[in-house]
Amino acid sequence: MTTITDTTRNGVDTEQLFATLDLIKAQPELAKFQFRASNRWINGAHNRTTIKDFYAAGGEDTSRSEEFQIDAGEPAILLGTDTGANPAEYLLHALAACLTTSIVYVAAARKVELTSVQSTLTGDMDVRGALGVDDEPRNGFERISVSFRVTGNAPEEKLREVVERARKRSAVYDMVTNGVPVAVEVASE
Amino acid sequence: MTTITDTTRNGVDTEQLFATLDLIKAQPELAKFQFRASNRWINGAHNRTTIKDFYAAGGEDTSRSEEFQIDAGEPAILLGTDTGANPAEYLLHALAACLTTSIVYVAAARKVELTSVQSTLTGDMDVRGALGVDDEPRNGFERISVSFRVTGNAPEEKLREVVERARKRSAVYDMVTNGVPVAVEVASE
Repeated sequence: MTTITDTTRNGVDTEQLFATLDLIKAQPELAKFQFRASNRWINGAHNRTTIKDFYAAGGEDTSRSEEFQIDAGEPAILLGTDTGANPAEYLLHALAACLTTSIVYVAAARKVELTSVQSTLTGDMDVRGALGVDDEPRNGFERISVSFRVTGNAPEEKLREVVERARKRSAVYDMVTNGVPVAVEVASE
Repeated sequence: MTTITDTTRNGVDTEQLFATLDLIKAQPELAKFQFRASNRWINGAHNRTTIKDFYAAGGEDTSRSEEFQIDAGEPAILLGTDTGANPAEYLLHALAACLTTSIVYVAAARKVELTSVQSTLTGDMDVRGALGVDDEPRNGFERISVSFRVTGNAPEEKLREVVERARKRSAVYDMVTNGVPVAVEVASE
């Protein structure tokens, strides 16, 4: 007789998750990652980012067989032709995706089986800043609101704890709320 | 005889651009925009954002005929199955796209015809933060580097000025460098 222990919860292999955490605890130098993106202007507000390679766990990761291509654009009122979501909308997507994955991983580690995770995000912007009409409003969102609806096999209090823990560990939430130093170089040849 | 004046430069209708700026100067209340995103967890690190509606210029914008669907994921080393770029990579995309569109619009307004705008971005992360292994490293990127190559019918100095002006007006650059207040609500029913 064979006993099969399914270690997958919420689609996350928890055995691999805990092994990864143990490995990084033992060898912190493996925690150094570098993510990358290349962007090319196409026309007007249409540009395209290509994402594939990254550095992880002591070397170049080669596990991705294909690159991701992501198109950006603007709607007509912002002088584009809707060739993709606009950059500020992609920032909302990055935030939603990171918080959601963090919730799913934290729940998996804490033996909570989720049945659904949904969120709606809004970002309020006074476009006078970005359009250069007025220096008073900032360029970006004045505020972002995130509303989650999370269901699973745990009491409401436990589900709230999972979301709170996820918020405290989310990479994009950290960046969007606290900011990141950004260096910009330009070559013109 | 008809004289046709083509007001489009870099794929941007400059007549419409200046008309938009004049309108917003005259009626600042039209500058209030709200962008939105809805996200739904699918499985593991796979989740999907839907983007369509937004509020602009005094009302709900209905110009978009279709919604954008954007899938996020994680590579194998971060316990996913590459169902899309990961959230931190999407943040790099948002930053690249916003700076690029800002460059294109500023150049159009300043009568600079661009021939190419390309960029590569890198973000360095110690994943001990986001994985909750160690409280010392921050969760997000420690730093982001952006390298632009811009060519067009203007001297290098002018092209650099365009990039510098674009950086000062980019919505996502502002948010990523300075941070935004984010409110998170949770419901579990």
